[in-house]
Amino acid sequence: MAIERLSGAKLDEVLAGLPGWSLREDGLAIIRELKFADFNEAFGFMTRVAIQADKVDHHPEWFNVYNRVVVTLTTHDADGLSQRDVDLASFIDSLAPAT
Amino acid sequence: MAIERLSGAKLDEVLAGLPGWSLREDGLAIIRELKFADFNEAFGFMTRVAIQADKVDHHPEWFNVYNRVVVTLTTHDADGLSQRDVDLASFIDSLAPAT
Repeated sequence: MAIERLSGAKLDEVLAGLPGWSLREDGLAIIRELKFADFNEAFGFMTRVAIQADKVDHHPEWFNVYNRVVVTLTTHDADGLSQRDVDLASFIDSLAPAT
Repeated sequence: MAIERLSGAKLDEVLAGLPGWSLREDGLAIIRELKFADFNEAFGFMTRVAIQADKVDHHPEWFNVYNRVVVTLTTHDADGLSQRDVDLASFIDSLAPAT
C-alpha cells in the first residue's frame, strides 16, 4: 500500500514546524545536521534514534564523523516525504542538543 | 605528535592484507561497504565498531541506510593512512558478514 506523499500547502505547513530541517534540493527529503560534544554523545544519539527507527520500521539515511551526524529522511514508498518522516524528525528534534 | 603516514611499499603491503577495502581516489583513505541482513544487524555492527573506536580514540567516517554501511578510514593527524586505520579495518573485517 502506497503511503501518502506530503506536498503543497501540507508540506509547507510541516516544514514550518521543523525549523531545524532543510528540504533537500530535489524536494524529496529533509536533512538536519547535528553536532554533539563528542563521539560518545553523537553515537548515543544515533543509538536512541536507531531503536526508535527499527520499532516504527522507518529508517534514516545518516552520516557520522566524530561528533557530527547528518540525518536525511525520506519515504521510499511515497517517493518523497510522508508523515513517517515528520514523526521521526520530531523524535530526533527531541534528542537534539540545545543550540 | 604526528602519526606516521603509511606510503610506498609499506602501504602496498597493508592494502594487500585488506582485500575488502579499496583506496579512496585521493589515496588518503580506505573504504569498505558492508551489507547485512537488516537494519538490526547493520546497527549492531556499528555499535560494536563504535565502542572499539572510542576505546582506541580513532573514529570512522561512515554512512548507513537500512542494511548498508559504508566505512571510510583515514588518520587526520597523519594526513593519510596510518597503522590506526589498519587496526580498525582489521577489527571491522572480523565482524563483517561472510560474503
